[in-house]
Formats: sequence, structure tokens, C-alpha cells
Amino acid sequence: MHNPFVPETFEGWSLLHLMYRVRWDRLRGLAAGDLQRMADETVAAVAVPDGATAFVQMLGHKADLMVICFRRSFEELGQAQLSLSRSALHDCLEPTTSYVSIVELGQYDMTAKLHEQLGAKFKPGSDEFEAAFDAELKVQEQRVGSRLFIELPQWRYVCFYPMNKLRGETVNWYSESYERRLQMMREHGMIGRSYHGKVQQIISGSIGYDDWEWGVDLFAPEPLVFKKLIYEMRFDEASARFAEFGPFYTGLQFSPGQLGAYLSGQLPSLVDA
Amino acid sequence: MHNPFVPETFEGWSLLHLMYRVRWDRLRGLAAGDLQRMADETVAAVAVPDGATAFVQMLGHKADLMVICFRRSFEELGQAQLSLSRSALHDCLEPTTSYVSIVELGQYDMTAKLHEQLGAKFKPGSDEFEAAFDAELKVQEQRVGSRLFIELPQWRYVCFYPMNKLRGETVNWYSESYERRLQMMREHGMIGRSYHGKVQQIISGSIGYDDWEWGVDLFAPEPLVFKKLIYEMRFDEASARFAEFGPFYTGLQFSPGQLGAYLSGQLPSLVDA
Amino acid sequence: MHNPFVPETFEGWSLLHLMYRVRWDRLRGLAAGDLQRMADETVAAVAVPDGATAFVQMLGHKADLMVICFRRSFEELGQAQLSLSRSALHDCLEPTTSYVSIVELGQYDMTAKLHEQLGAKFKPGSDEFEAAFDAELKVQEQRVGSRLFIELPQWRYVCFYPMNKLRGETVNWYSESYERRLQMMREHGMIGRSYHGKVQQIISGSIGYDDWEWGVDLFAPEPLVFKKLIYEMRFDEASARFAEFGPFYTGLQFSPGQLGAYLSGQLPSLVDA
Amino acid sequence: MHNPFVPETFEGWSLLHLMYRVRWDRLRGLAAGDLQRMADETVAAVAVPDGATAFVQMLGHKADLMVICFRRSFEELGQAQLSLSRSALHDCLEPTTSYVSIVELGQYDMTAKLHEQLGAKFKPGSDEFEAAFDAELKVQEQRVGSRLFIELPQWRYVCFYPMNKLRGETVNWYSESYERRLQMMREHGMIGRSYHGKVQQIISGSIGYDDWEWGVDLFAPEPLVFKKLIYEMRFDEASARFAEFGPFYTGLQFSPGQLGAYLSGQLPSLVDA
Amino acid sequence: MHNPFVPETFEGWSLLHLMYRVRWDRLRGLAAGDLQRMADETVAAVAVPDGATAFVQMLGHKADLMVICFRRSFEELGQAQLSLSRSALHDCLEPTTSYVSIVELGQYDMTAKLHEQLGAKFKPGSDEFEAAFDAELKVQEQRVGSRLFIELPQWRYVCFYPMNKLRGETVNWYSESYERRLQMMREHGMIGRSYHGKVQQIISGSIGYDDWEWGVDLFAPEPLVFKKLIYEMRFDEASARFAEFGPFYTGLQFSPGQLGAYLSGQLPSLVDA
Repeated sequence: MHNPFVPETFEGWSLLHLMYRVRWDRLRGLAAGDLQRMADETVAAVAVPDGATAFVQMLGHKADLMVICFRRSFEELGQAQLSLSRSALHDCLEPTTSYVSIVELGQYDMTAKLHEQLGAKFKPGSDEFEAAFDAELKVQEQRVGSRLFIELPQWRYVCFYPMNKLRGETVNWYSESYERRLQMMREHGMIGRSYHGKVQQIISGSIGYDDWEWGVDLFAPEPLVFKKLIYEMRFDEASARFAEFGPFYTGLQFSPGQLGAYLSGQLPSLVDA
Repeated sequence: MHNPFVPETFEGWSLLHLMYRVRWDRLRGLAAGDLQRMADETVAAVAVPDGATAFVQMLGHKADLMVICFRRSFEELGQAQLSLSRSALHDCLEPTTSYVSIVELGQYDMTAKLHEQLGAKFKPGSDEFEAAFDAELKVQEQRVGSRLFIELPQWRYVCFYPMNKLRGETVNWYSESYERRLQMMREHGMIGRSYHGKVQQIISGSIGYDDWEWGVDLFAPEPLVFKKLIYEMRFDEASARFAEFGPFYTGLQFSPGQLGAYLSGQLPSLVDA
Repeated sequence: MHNPFVPETFEGWSLLHLMYRVRWDRLRGLAAGDLQRMADETVAAVAVPDGATAFVQMLGHKADLMVICFRRSFEELGQAQLSLSRSALHDCLEPTTSYVSIVELGQYDMTAKLHEQLGAKFKPGSDEFEAAFDAELKVQEQRVGSRLFIELPQWRYVCFYPMNKLRGETVNWYSESYERRLQMMREHGMIGRSYHGKVQQIISGSIGYDDWEWGVDLFAPEPLVFKKLIYEMRFDEASARFAEFGPFYTGLQFSPGQLGAYLSGQLPSLVDA
Repeated sequence: MHNPFVPETFEGWSLLHLMYRVRWDRLRGLAAGDLQRMADETVAAVAVPDGATAFVQMLGHKADLMVICFRRSFEELGQAQLSLSRSALHDCLEPTTSYVSIVELGQYDMTAKLHEQLGAKFKPGSDEFEAAFDAELKVQEQRVGSRLFIELPQWRYVCFYPMNKLRGETVNWYSESYERRLQMMREHGMIGRSYHGKVQQIISGSIGYDDWEWGVDLFAPEPLVFKKLIYEMRFDEASARFAEFGPFYTGLQFSPGQLGAYLSGQLPSLVDA
Repeated sequence: MHNPFVPETFEGWSLLHLMYRVRWDRLRGLAAGDLQRMADETVAAVAVPDGATAFVQMLGHKADLMVICFRRSFEELGQAQLSLSRSALHDCLEPTTSYVSIVELGQYDMTAKLHEQLGAKFKPGSDEFEAAFDAELKVQEQRVGSRLFIELPQWRYVCFYPMNKLRGETVNWYSESYERRLQMMREHGMIGRSYHGKVQQIISGSIGYDDWEWGVDLFAPEPLVFKKLIYEMRFDEASARFAEFGPFYTGLQFSPGQLGAYLSGQLPSLVDA
């Protein structure tokens, strides 16, 4: 039953962010050829015909390496994690953190419109209402399909962080009216749109899967835009009063073919030579 | 003495969730036959005539493997943990977290009715009242016995999380009147019932046993329903204002007979071949 | 000087809870005889003529083994910890947590009465007042001496948790009047008394010694009573509004003579065969 | 588009704070010559023509050694971290924490003036307005260029801590008006200026890069000034009500040429002999 | 410039609390003579002509051993930590926590008096005012010099904890008027004075150096007084509403000459035989 207080969502890729600290001491003795072979095996282990796998060199102690798996299902996420764990390189990796989520497009605007339009034609909650609602959702979902199964952005810098909507004792997103939430999401979206072309954002939902409600991945050709964008958003009401942020992770995306170079100590590039 | 402010509860299985990170580096050198033998020994170590043991491949760094023990008593939980610890596979496992609880059916509705009905017949707190209350509880408990000692759901996806009812300085579940709490639990239950057939829920109580008040296990044939269900519930008052959530764990249940396959790097299935 | 806002307390055993994860991999190769010898040495190392040492098999990952030392002084606690650390078994133990406290009987009722009675006879704070107060305290302390130096309860199940009285910005136990606190402690105590004979409680004070204000040990012949008791108490005002709970630990007490059996993988019993 | 609620910022060095615990046990056996060679290799690995690398001996268990990289880009930060990780000394270092940020000069005053001045000439948000704003920003940025790419202060004592502006339920920096924030930042700045010549401060922004909003580095010739300065600031409104502080790190800066001496157990000095 | 809202402080010893868990397994094989030699070397490594070094056997898992260094400067603290790290015993120690601070005497009363007296003679903030203030401070500082560079108390029991003054959204020490803070500090001090002769207290300031604002060391000939003192203080307003406490650490001070005995498993005493 479609609940008028709850925005509809569309879902795409299943996402698994895996972060590792590299055990450089275990790699120390190995020849360049061995490192390359281990890298090749690992890259092959997570290659998929449908989906993508991003490799990111991280800054700071939280992780050296982040692998982001874009897959069609949790089955395939399970396979990806298991294949990584069984690859030889894994003995030189120490898992430090991870994130499980599904690409999600929240539909605050559309949900309100559908309840209004269909509520004018049918009794809300009636079979007719529900069937018309479902049919309309399917149409809309197809319209945004390419954003649900987005191609991996080929931009160098990556920013990842999880977040919640605050449920404080007096400031509680989930106790606000649909109208207020819709209004705040619109304002929030407008700031996002003013950064169009400078940064690409992938929102994923993780309620039921991981410790925060959403994960946010940002990709950009230069890292300053992350700070500018998130700082500006911090002043809009949806963020200022209702956003609770988890840890932030920053890194440099590189081509899977560059993993061996990275392990050998060469800064890996986004494009293979 | 039956306290009219406190909902009665019925209890079933003693539950022990044990989560482990697999030390893949220690497994690396072992032949498939050895892995199978270790897996078989472990599965045998936790096999029980009365009860069940679920195996779950987890997503993310929090754990690779979750073992859920359903037992008749804490004695048997102690035996299960000890047997696992003494099995050879345990040298390749690193305990990361766990949860101790007892399957619980809260009886908000029934408790209110019994106090009302029996309070009309007997002086509350009198021996007659207490005896009649106890007798009626026994009848009711038998009625729900199969839900207390539920069979392990044979569904692929598992979601586990612990939770509290909030005791904030101004928003405090335990300071709300019985009537308000009953009303909120009813609303909460209605959303749950609308997901009937799509997800199976096992609530267990852990006050006095572990760090949160309740544990929640969800089982489903596809994982999207976890997100949809928990997101929708987040807007009902019992959750929006009064639920405090712990970490969320997600995984794929597999047949105990598949443990060897999993250790060898094959995605284990819910049904043996 | 006796402060009329501060309840007097009587103190008994010095307590040290030591929790360890067993390094089962290090025990793996050892013969049963060796395990027994290590167990015997450890038990002998903490045997005392005056006091007691409880051994508890814990459920979950927080600890495998808890050792509770009841001693006459912190000197003897220091000796117990050092003896354990120097025993051979300790190489197979990894300390995970601990708690330092002193058995404490809070005297909310008696303190109020003494201030009232002696304040009617002497000028509060005068030498006569203080001397009479001290004399009366000594009499009362002797009356409860056996509860201060209680014998180790011979019950199978153990629950341990630390707790604080809340000092929030608006809900603050230490800003409440003595009368209100006294009233709440009475209500709290009445629930406790209704569980008399089903559970034995040992409260210890840890202000100045450890991270929470009090430690609570519960012993019972079956574990369900822990959940029932603590859940019912959660609705009384002293707990609902003012209690802040730390982690909960649950386990099965066993006879020191059974330590070798436990290390060998046999569920240890409370009574030696 | 220039948002009148958001202060403009100018950015300089990309900063990476890397903290390590030294594995003294692994260094134990090594001869002084070997230690010197490892130190030299590490210093060479992070030497740069444009930028700087500070070495700091830390006090306490959080880290023994802090390396602060001042670089032109995140690319160069990535190269610095990777070079350190691949140096032989790294096998004797254990990363404990880190911080990723960019030197930032917030422009509360200037932003207000530009909106006022240009808003009097052009329609806010118009192309003319935006172009004039951008042009003026470029002029201003050049004026402060030397503070953005500041030289590494040659003072012995270092204090580093991250901080946020509070977003509480009732006290929320991001919900305050621009005027109130500007006023508080002025008061805050005046205290800072009264310590001119005694302490040198480097503020860096980390929104989008790390877990706090800003990092603060203080350098001084004697450590008491850190306590005096931060204590006095704690009473100004911007700090008293709105500052949330992370962990504090303290240490003694030394010349890179002294790293070998440090590893050998000699207190390293800021100036080479 | 002397700020009338900020109490002046006098500073003495630089303090470094270092806590270690002993790796008893690494000590196991060593002969008593070797242990004694390692102990002697460690004690010699931190011996100083001006200052002191306390050794404390800790209770519980947080640390086995605490070393408190009283030194004239942070340089000397750096030297002490480095010497400990380079001593052979350090391979059998695992740093668990630490605290960096400077002995501090807050001057709430005196600061108020100086502002009043000198403000009556000179224009506050004028050069005459500041010079007279500085001169008077120097006189006062010399008067309390022996408390700033206090001798290490020769009492058996040690209690250490860090603390903050609360900066909550409604209860905020730093937003209270000077008069209110002065009044609360007086009340707080009176309780402290009533324990004179029973416990010796050393307050150190750590703003800018470590994660809390102050560290508190208590020394006493018996440990019960810690609990009594801190519990009574918890009811005064400065503590009840404004104190935020960190972890508490408890232990038994022993003579440096007893370190070898301790490592061998003998309870070390405060006085050498």
C-alpha cells in the first residue's frame, strides 16, 4: 500500500564499498613481476560483464585502497567480496571498513503528485488506486533507468560518506510533515544542480543494510569542488538542521590496470598508458 | 506480581548470534579436501536434535560469517559457542561481534485486556487476581508456542540489527503511558502486517543479556524488502521518535552443507545440490 | 562532615571483574593433561583464605571467561591480577575488559533518619552531632556486615553490567532533592524485593575506580529472571528517567575445579563431579 | 552563484597529517648506521621542490611520529603517502591516525562587503554581479596568496586538533544569521590577534575530506601559549557555544635531518648541528 | 591583555602519564636476573635530577603499569618517553593510553580581586593596568611555587581521571558569568578542603595538549577516600551540572626499585626493603 507520508524510491545497482589498509611490509620483498601478477589476478577476480568495479587510492590512515563494486544483486556482491578474499593479494590487505547499499533515487516530488492526481480519481488505498499507482511508478522508473544503472564516472577524485536524517528529541526529520520535507529537499536539490557538470553524485540507500541511512559518492575532476559543494549545502535547512554525517573518505580513482603500479609505489593514473 | 505498566512477554528460543571474520590468509594453503573436512567438523559440532543453526555469508568488513544458534537454553548456547571455539576451523576465524537474546513476543494488547477483564472480577494484586492472571497467561502462551519456537526461515537474505526504545531527556518511551505505548505498537504492527508473506521477522529480547534491548532478525527471498519495510516504519511514531538503532548486518543464508564450498571461494547456496 | 544531600554508604568486598577472550588457537595443540595442569595452576594462583574467586563461562564475543575476585583490599586485588598475569594459562588469554569496584550498600533511608533524629538533638555539623552520627553509623554498619561481605552466590547464571545515574542537561539525578531521590530509590527497591529468592544482587560502587558509577552483579538459577527483573525496573522512575546503562555481560558460573574441563571443550558445571 | 549566506573561502596548500606509532621492537636490533640509512631514505622519499614536509616527535600514546605534508595538490599528497608506505622504515611504523585538508582562509568580512557593494551596483545573481564578484575575489585571493601558501613555521612546539561548528538541536551555527556569525568570528579573531608573534596558526578546511570540518595547526616557541590561547578563546561565544573539538595532538617539531637521531633514542632538535 | 572573564592560572610541572599493558607472554621465559636488569635499565632511563617519576601497578585491563613523569618542560617529557621507548623492557610493553598536561592552579578568587583592585586604580586594559597586573601575578605565583612544583606524594593509592567543564546546549560552563563560576568553584573547593590530610590532589591543565580540559591525580593511603570524596563532590553544582568525566584509572604506587619484583610476579611495595 502506498503510504502518503513515505516518499517512493527507485533502486539500481547494488553497491559494496570495501576499504583496505595495505600491509606494505608483506609486499616489501616481492618482485615487480609478482606484484603485477597478484594485481592482475585480483582485477580479474572482480571483473564482471554487467556492472563495474572502481579502484581508488585513499588518502590517510583509514584505508589505502577502496574497491567499489557496482552489481545487479546482493548475490553478485557476495561473489565479489568472496573472490577478493580468496585472491592472493588479500593476504596483504587488512579490511578496515565497508559499506553496503543500493543506488536510490528518492521521489519526493513525484510521490506527492501521484497521491494528489490519483487521489482525485480513486479512493486512496483502494485496489484501483494502488494499481494505478503501481502502473505509474513503473513508467517513471523506466524513465530514470539510466540513472539507476549509471555508468561508473571516469573522474579522478572520489569522496564517500554515509549520512542520516536526524531523529533528535526536538529536531526530527521523520516527524516533519511531507510538505516540509518536500520543500527542504527541493531547496537542497537546487544547490546540487548549481554544481552540474562539476561533480557527479551517486546516492545509495542503506536502511536495513548498513549503519547509516544513505551513502553518498561524489566524483569530480578536481577535489576542491567537494569542499565547496558540501559547505554550501551545510547552510540549507535539510543539511543544517537535519543531516547527520558519518566519516568522510577521500581518494584518487585509478584504472584497474594500474593496480600493479600502485603496489610497486608508482602513483596510479586514471587512464592506462 | 503483574504490573499494569509493564507488558507481559512470552519467550522461546535462546539465541546466540556469532559473527566472525575469516582469516583467509590462514586458509590459503589448505587443499579443498582439508577445507571440506574442517567445514564438516564445524557443522557437526553445532548440530542439535532440538533447535537449529543458521549459517550466513555476510557482506562487508564487519564479518564474513554469521552463525545463529537457536537453542532451548543458555546451557545449550554455552555448549554451542564452546564447540565452535574448539573446532579446528576456529583458528581461521576471528570473533568480531555477537548477540545474546531470547525470542520474545511482547503482549501489549493482551496485557491491557487481562488487567481490564481480571481487574473487573478481582482486586488487582490479590492472590485471586494473580492466580487468574497466571492461568490465563499459560493458555495464551500455548496458543503462540509455535511462534516462540519458530522454525528457521528458509529464505536467502538475512538482516540483523539490535535496537532500543529511546530514553531521552524529553522523549522517553518508558515514561509514556501504557495507553500511548499500546497505540503506537498497534500502528507499528500494522505496517509490519502489510509486509506479510514478503519478510519473516524474529524479535528477541536482550535486556539483561546484551547491550541493546532487542534484536531483530529479518529473513526474505530478496533484499530490497528490508529497505522498504524499515524505511516505511521509520515514519511511524514508535520508530520515528522512540527507536534507537544499533549497527545493521546483512548477508546471504546458506545451507550448512555449503560451508566447505564457501571456504573454497564458491558462493554457497541455500539448498544443497 | 556528614552532608545531608549525600546518602551514606557502607562498603564490603573489594571487587575485580576480569574478562578474557581465550586464545583457542594457542590451546589447540595441548594435551588434556597439560590443560588440566595449567587450569590447576591458575586456580591455585587466585585461591585465598578470606574472600572468593568466581569463574564464569561467558556468552558471545566480548569474553570467553570472566574471573570475579572478592577480596579484603585493593592490595589483594592487585595480587590476584598479578598472579593471574604470571600464570602460564595467561599466555592463552587476552584481556578484553574489566571492572574495579567495592561492594556498597547505599543508605538513603537511614541517612535521612539520622539527620532528622540527630539534628533534633544536636546542632548539625557540631562536634556532638558528628560524633553521634559516626557512632550510629558504626552500629548500623555492623548490622549489615554479612551483606557487605556476602558469600559468593552458588547460582548458575550471572549477569553483570555497570551503570550511572544520569546527569543530563535537564534530567539530572544529582540535582534532584534528597526527598525525591529517596522516594525513587524506595520505589526501585520494592520491585527488587518482589524478586526475592529468585535472583541475588550485588551492588558495588566504582566512583573514582572505574568508568561508571556502579557495577551490578546478578546471580540466578535460570536466566529469564534477569530480563524480567530489569525490564520491569526500566519503567520505574529511577531507571526510566535516571539510569544510564553500560554494556551487559552474561554467562554461566562454574566451579573452579571445572576450569580444565572448560579448556578441553566440555561444558563446565557449577558443582564438581 | 555566490550565496550570501555562505562565506567565501580561499584555499592554499593541500595538507596531509600522517601519524604513526613507532614499532620500537622492530628497530631494536638495528645498528645506528642502518637506522640513519632508513631515516635518510624516508626523508628523501618525501622531499619536494615545491611544498614542505614537517617532522614532529609526538607526546603520548596516540603517535610517536607525525609527518605533515604541505603540497600543491591531492595528487602530490597521494604520492607522498605512497612513497612513505613503500620506504623501508614504514615496516617499523604503524599508522594510527591522519588528517586530510586544504589550507583555508575564511572571508566572513570580505564576503559581506562584496555582497553589499556589488549588490548596490548589479542585480544579485545576475551575470554582471557574478562576473564582478569573481573578478574581485581573484584580486583578493592574490592579496593573501602568501598566507595560503605559507612557509612551514620554524617553531619547536606543535599543536594539532580538528574541530566543527556545532549543529545541535537548539544551538546550531549553520542556522545563525550571517550577521551573527560575522560578529562572532570578529570577536574570535580579536583574541587570536592578541597572541600575534607568540603563536602561528594554520587553519585548513576538511569538509568533504575528513571527519571534522576544520583542522587547526598551532606552532610556537614554547608550549604554554597553546593552553593560554585556547583557554581564553573557549570563553568567546564562537567557541563557548559553537565549537566542538576533536582530539588534541602535541609534539616537538624537528629537522628532517634529525630523524635518524630520533630513531636511535636521541631527542631530535629543530636545527641540524 | 588580562581578560576579566578568564581566570588566571599558574603552571608548574609538565606531566606525562604513560600507561602500558605488560606483554606477560614475552616476559615468561626470562630469568629473574634478566627481569631485574631490564627493570633497572628502565628505571635508570627515566631517572632525573630535577623532577620525579612515579610507578603505579594498575588494576584492570586498561593498563598493567602507569608511569607518571613530572618534568620541567615538554622537552624533558619528550626525552622521557623516548628513553622508555628505547629501553629493552619496552618490547614487553604495549602502550594503551596516555595523558599530556601541565600542573595548574586556577585563580578564580585572585583574578576577581585583581581586576577589582587594579580596576579601581587604573583604566582596565591600559598599559599601567596590565603592568600592575603582571607584577602582582608574579608575586602571587612565587607564593604558590611549592604547590606548582609539588613533590611526588608518597601515598600508596593513585586515582587518575580527565575531565571537562560541560559545554551543553543549555548547560554551558563557559557561558556562565564569572561570578557564578567563582561561587561554584568556592563551594567545590570547600568539599575538597574537608578531605585535607586524607587525600592529596594534583590538578593539571590539558587544553591544547590532550583530549580533555583537565587531568586529576589523587593520592591517598587507602582507596575508599577516592570514592567518598568524588561521590560527595558529585552533588555540588560545579560537578553535578557542569563536570563531564572521562575514564577512571586506579592503581597502587610502588617504589621504582620494586619494578623488577613486579615483573617477577611479586606485589611491589611503596618502600624498598
